[in-house]
Amino acid sequence: MLVIMKNDATQEQIDNVIREITDAGYRGIPIPGDHRTAVCIVGNQGMVEESPFLALEGVKEVLRVTKPYKLVSHETCPKPTVIRLGEVEIGNGCKPVIIAGPCSVESEEQTLRIARQVKEGGAKLFRGGAFKPRTSPYSFQGLGKAGLKILEKVRSETGLLIVTEATDSENLKLVEASTDIIQIGARNMQNYSLLRRAGQTKKPVILKRGLSATIEELLMAAEYIMAEGNTQVILCERGIRTFSDNTRFTLDLSAILSVKAASHLPIIVDPSHAAGRRDYVIPLSRAAIATGADGLIVEVHSDPPSALSDGAQSLYPEQFCQLVKEVEYLNMLGVEKCLK
Amino acid sequence: MLVIMKNDATQEQIDNVIREITDAGYRGIPIPGDHRTAVCIVGNQGMVEESPFLALEGVKEVLRVTKPYKLVSHETCPKPTVIRLGEVEIGNGCKPVIIAGPCSVESEEQTLRIARQVKEGGAKLFRGGAFKPRTSPYSFQGLGKAGLKILEKVRSETGLLIVTEATDSENLKLVEASTDIIQIGARNMQNYSLLRRAGQTKKPVILKRGLSATIEELLMAAEYIMAEGNTQVILCERGIRTFSDNTRFTLDLSAILSVKAASHLPIIVDPSHAAGRRDYVIPLSRAAIATGADGLIVEVHSDPPSALSDGAQSLYPEQFCQLVKEVEYLNMLGVEKCLK
Amino acid sequence: MLVIMKNDATQEQIDNVIREITDAGYRGIPIPGDHRTAVCIVGNQGMVEESPFLALEGVKEVLRVTKPYKLVSHETCPKPTVIRLGEVEIGNGCKPVIIAGPCSVESEEQTLRIARQVKEGGAKLFRGGAFKPRTSPYSFQGLGKAGLKILEKVRSETGLLIVTEATDSENLKLVEASTDIIQIGARNMQNYSLLRRAGQTKKPVILKRGLSATIEELLMAAEYIMAEGNTQVILCERGIRTFSDNTRFTLDLSAILSVKAASHLPIIVDPSHAAGRRDYVIPLSRAAIATGADGLIVEVHSDPPSALSDGAQSLYPEQFCQLVKEVEYLNMLGVEKCLK
Amino acid sequence: MLVIMKNDATQEQIDNVIREITDAGYRGIPIPGDHRTAVCIVGNQGMVEESPFLALEGVKEVLRVTKPYKLVSHETCPKPTVIRLGEVEIGNGCKPVIIAGPCSVESEEQTLRIARQVKEGGAKLFRGGAFKPRTSPYSFQGLGKAGLKILEKVRSETGLLIVTEATDSENLKLVEASTDIIQIGARNMQNYSLLRRAGQTKKPVILKRGLSATIEELLMAAEYIMAEGNTQVILCERGIRTFSDNTRFTLDLSAILSVKAASHLPIIVDPSHAAGRRDYVIPLSRAAIATGADGLIVEVHSDPPSALSDGAQSLYPEQFCQLVKEVEYLNMLGVEKCLK
Repeated sequence: MLVIMKNDATQEQIDNVIREITDAGYRGIPIPGDHRTAVCIVGNQGMVEESPFLALEGVKEVLRVTKPYKLVSHETCPKPTVIRLGEVEIGNGCKPVIIAGPCSVESEEQTLRIARQVKEGGAKLFRGGAFKPRTSPYSFQGLGKAGLKILEKVRSETGLLIVTEATDSENLKLVEASTDIIQIGARNMQNYSLLRRAGQTKKPVILKRGLSATIEELLMAAEYIMAEGNTQVILCERGIRTFSDNTRFTLDLSAILSVKAASHLPIIVDPSHAAGRRDYVIPLSRAAIATGADGLIVEVHSDPPSALSDGAQSLYPEQFCQLVKEVEYLNMLGVEKCLK
Repeated sequence: MLVIMKNDATQEQIDNVIREITDAGYRGIPIPGDHRTAVCIVGNQGMVEESPFLALEGVKEVLRVTKPYKLVSHETCPKPTVIRLGEVEIGNGCKPVIIAGPCSVESEEQTLRIARQVKEGGAKLFRGGAFKPRTSPYSFQGLGKAGLKILEKVRSETGLLIVTEATDSENLKLVEASTDIIQIGARNMQNYSLLRRAGQTKKPVILKRGLSATIEELLMAAEYIMAEGNTQVILCERGIRTFSDNTRFTLDLSAILSVKAASHLPIIVDPSHAAGRRDYVIPLSRAAIATGADGLIVEVHSDPPSALSDGAQSLYPEQFCQLVKEVEYLNMLGVEKCLK
Repeated sequence: MLVIMKNDATQEQIDNVIREITDAGYRGIPIPGDHRTAVCIVGNQGMVEESPFLALEGVKEVLRVTKPYKLVSHETCPKPTVIRLGEVEIGNGCKPVIIAGPCSVESEEQTLRIARQVKEGGAKLFRGGAFKPRTSPYSFQGLGKAGLKILEKVRSETGLLIVTEATDSENLKLVEASTDIIQIGARNMQNYSLLRRAGQTKKPVILKRGLSATIEELLMAAEYIMAEGNTQVILCERGIRTFSDNTRFTLDLSAILSVKAASHLPIIVDPSHAAGRRDYVIPLSRAAIATGADGLIVEVHSDPPSALSDGAQSLYPEQFCQLVKEVEYLNMLGVEKCLK
Repeated sequence: MLVIMKNDATQEQIDNVIREITDAGYRGIPIPGDHRTAVCIVGNQGMVEESPFLALEGVKEVLRVTKPYKLVSHETCPKPTVIRLGEVEIGNGCKPVIIAGPCSVESEEQTLRIARQVKEGGAKLFRGGAFKPRTSPYSFQGLGKAGLKILEKVRSETGLLIVTEATDSENLKLVEASTDIIQIGARNMQNYSLLRRAGQTKKPVILKRGLSATIEELLMAAEYIMAEGNTQVILCERGIRTFSDNTRFTLDLSAILSVKAASHLPIIVDPSHAAGRRDYVIPLSRAAIATGADGLIVEVHSDPPSALSDGAQSLYPEQFCQLVKEVEYLNMLGVEKCLK
């Protein structure tokens, strides 16, 4: 059980709540957030009577946490969340969103060229990494701030909305200022400090499933963001690590179904990182849409063989056009009329 | 390298080949098949000169095995295999086949009822287990021979073609006599004796991917069947075992793409066993078809809650009708016109 | 619940039991064994009253199956099982047994040479495959019957006991006649027909854990053997399939602990197949013994680089001597005095 | 290839290097570190001639990166690294180190009590979390700064050295000031910003293997720390995520062997988190030492059932004494005399 203190609760009021919890035979653990404090009651075996705590000064509400996640669950919010950015809607079952662009922002020229190509192909959102988490410290780590400037130029020149990754609290501030959607990568899915900081921003967050995260852990990670007040979270399935070696990761499309069964949050799919090879991206994209994904995030490069990262899995621009066409067909037909 | 002896090669001729191999500094291992013997050359580091062996008496041909699998590969047979059973075609990209029915044949009445329902829904093939491989020796193991009789009745009364599983050499003989397609289950994917026996039948074989089999191992298992002379093999993705616990197994749709990249054999998908829950079967079926599967095999029961096995993942008949409708839409639109 | 019929129960008595079960509102499924029949009661939601069935003619006993496995469990047999073969004891915590030899029986000369070497090193049991389950149909499949003859010669010349694998019902008969312990390989762990046949022999059975089998599934597979009347089952951990690529399989030593927590059966460890590389075999053997394994089964070859199979993981004879010495030290010190 | 600039290289010199790389037909990517810049040469197919770059002003050296990791490898440092803290040595094969304590620092009284108990048992290092990464935002997150104060008191009162976890850059500064060894948890193994910051401290770092990290990825993560100048890195195997459900994670002891085959860094084992249950900790600890681990990190609690976290896997103090005794026996006997 969680005793949520008011935003303006005093330390004295918090201490008083903890004292009452102790007197009732439990233990009260204060969990300070940035704006308010929650006091977690632990040590109870069964049900805890909530009314005594509700009556205390400074207490806003008392939450029973039946499922391990709360804010992300249908229980708390039965209507599907739709995130709106201008004319783009993410989470509206009727029209999946497509986010496309290169793995890394390599140069202004390359980035603008690809941006124009994916816009022509039909994308409304542009992805491109300025801060790259790389397995090797000697690999290209992204252009950093300069990359963000290029992304801002993409927005102003093409009107595409920007999605780019933050990898730590410091670059999160920079990313927040430049981007339309903040991406948190699979390797940071349980970087709780970063999740909390992302929860304090006003920008939507794409949260990628960790390589070996269960659906419950993915939802709990989203809960970290939402618990700080940011309700605009988009989940992303990007393949899990298994024994199977025909693809880099095993795309687990059942994640879409399990997320939708438990949560109101939208979920998109990244077939590029899952497959690790270009020729699988279009069929796996069709599969994701046919399963019910709210969108796709795919890697596209004007010249994949010379890409600084992830060239093998980047689509050529003409393949991206084909992808968009196929998704639209699938969508036109299926999702709205028959499949629902 | 493989020295293939003629069917009527004498033991003397085989011995002579082995002697020549030894003289050349390698080792010759005879691999007796049912109709002919192959002599495998081992112990070579690099290329072996083949002409000396081709010249020997009793030798039919000399095969270089560049890939570990041979008969299943595009190299050997560049055209996709299409298996024809009456009007049904499996492996024809234009029209995925749907196989449906209960996990187990429980009684004549139950089986006929479901058969009529899936026929009405649009199935052309009926699945139902007479010999059931069960984790527990105390679980219902199937009706055996009596189950096969019921399946024959299904065929004669409804015209549906029959798919049923063989689990050992003995019941394979019975199954072969009664069924139209022999199924080999995931747990038997590397039961090489059973594979060889299935390779000696004249009936098409559905070979399910093992729970932890790589694509290469799946293709090698098919190679066992084909090496005995049966070229009618249909592969089946049915989910792999991973850490992920939201479904019973993790459906790996990339298997479709990897099989098609390497082999001419058809591949179908079993979403029922992968998901382990009914409500995921339709969306995962759509995904399989959208990825390019040649067909589906799904569990349907007239009364799932009372099924003797796999009730939780069996579709209700009306759900099966919906599934067929959605697959047809997907197919109509996509696969033929745009997606190819 | 399981109604166990007497060995001499008539068909009429069995039919009567089934009729009574039906009348009680459940369904009775006869499970014929070789010597007796059990009737499994299915379709019950909660507890079933057992006394009415106990009273019927021909009924020996009524078993409640609370755990999915029964005969393998501590509940049924609280004392650890010790399998005795001459002076060798398997399952006696005080002295782990070591089984050693080549992957395959390649020739009489090679086999006898290795047998003498492992005997000198301290082995009491000799392993060597006559029937080899191989991923490729073109790989060396073992010498078959001729290999069994060689193994018999090993026994008569060295006094070593023989462990060799059966891969199907047919070669099981041959193997049973020639061997002291029958081995069932990982790929056949859920080959239930083979398990049942092995359960009908009088020889101890080593049952290897499947590549993706849970401990419960391993115990259930042993239950198949025991349910046929053969109580001499030895389990074997040999590595599971995971994402981790530094070894061929991931050796899961916790299997020893989980088996011992649930079952009275002995469990040994095969570090050779798990590691797939020779230099890991000795340290992983030490680890297995330190964890509490009842023994080891390791691959040894007089000339590993020229082995027809598994050369990379076969120990040189002098390494095997070192292994035995280390295990004895560990054992002397630890298991008896301090570690227990 | 990596062109390492001198610490005092000017921007002009760096630009010149990049220009020369471009002129040679490649691309030069500057990788700014805190003290010096490296320029990575990409876009080459084969070998790059290094002498032209060595001749340029401001260039310190040119490194060929044959393996993906460099500083962690035997190639760079053939002697095993031994980390010395007072009389404690980590990485000295002769005497494994044991780190023990509660999962979380819960209160001064609890922490001091456990510290005295583990000291009496034979521990030289004390573990205890002040900043806890928890799956749920509503779980107890640790006492934070107050926890660090308690740990400092443990050091001053017992003389035990302190190991505690840092989860982000901010608490890393605090942790660095209070602890003797900084721990980086499995979920942060690829939190590259945190790794870099840890690389800039002067304290040894225990780096835990990620739940789904390969050995190569673990070594690359260590490379991030070392590349910043901190050479005191201790790796830690703590179980990987697999399908196997009898333990929380599957302890992969082969990691010890693979790390030692590739790297000079010490590696210890955490059996507590791997097993998730107390009764497996002692046997798995023996196994780790028998395999060759340089130490253990185990959870001990004076009253496990009332622990705020990880109670199920925490040893009772008397069990910890038994663990130490067994490890000493194993060690006395084996590692020095016979096992090496």
